[in-house]
Amino acid sequence: MQVSEIEWSKTEQKVAKEAFEKAYEREIAALIQEVRAQASAIAELDDMWRLHDFLSARRHDIDGKYDYSYSVLLFIFARLVKEGWLHLDELKGLQTDKLSKVAALSRM
Amino acid sequence: MQVSEIEWSKTEQKVAKEAFEKAYEREIAALIQEVRAQASAIAELDDMWRLHDFLSARRHDIDGKYDYSYSVLLFIFARLVKEGWLHLDELKGLQTDKLSKVAALSRM
Repeated sequence: MQVSEIEWSKTEQKVAKEAFEKAYEREIAALIQEVRAQASAIAELDDMWRLHDFLSARRHDIDGKYDYSYSVLLFIFARLVKEGWLHLDELKGLQTDKLSKVAALSRM
Repeated sequence: MQVSEIEWSKTEQKVAKEAFEKAYEREIAALIQEVRAQASAIAELDDMWRLHDFLSARRHDIDGKYDYSYSVLLFIFARLVKEGWLHLDELKGLQTDKLSKVAALSRM
């Protein structure tokens, strides 16, 4: 599946950017809630280091995942759909072949 | 100041162990409170990564600090006194020269 040399129209770029930011905001909001919940449940040192490990992993994950680059954007969208941070509907406005690719990749 | 070859009587070992554990419990309890407070105040991603950085630093610090070894115990006690996790009074039962050393080191 050749996705790295796809052209993105101005309209598509706008749709993509908005969808990307929406997913990012959702994931961050959920993460903040999760961290607050874990922090409020800390009873001993081990719980605190577990929170630290959790934050280390999530930071690494998020830093790597939200790389807005057109060459990998369909893969990112597929992952975001798969993980539930984005709905395919929210990519409406992209060309049909792009939507099909995201849908297919998200089911892998 | 030669402190590494000091003898510790059974009584002193008991006093030392109890003081050590008391300081540890205090510092951990304060840290847990601090982490809960920081977590409940998280409003955006940067706040969360600041909490992560804070936990990384504190973990490193605490892992290194609470090393119960008689060869360095007077230094540890001095640091704990200086940082407010331990009172000199709580070392009562140690030989006078040990107490003096801890007091002197804690003022450095």
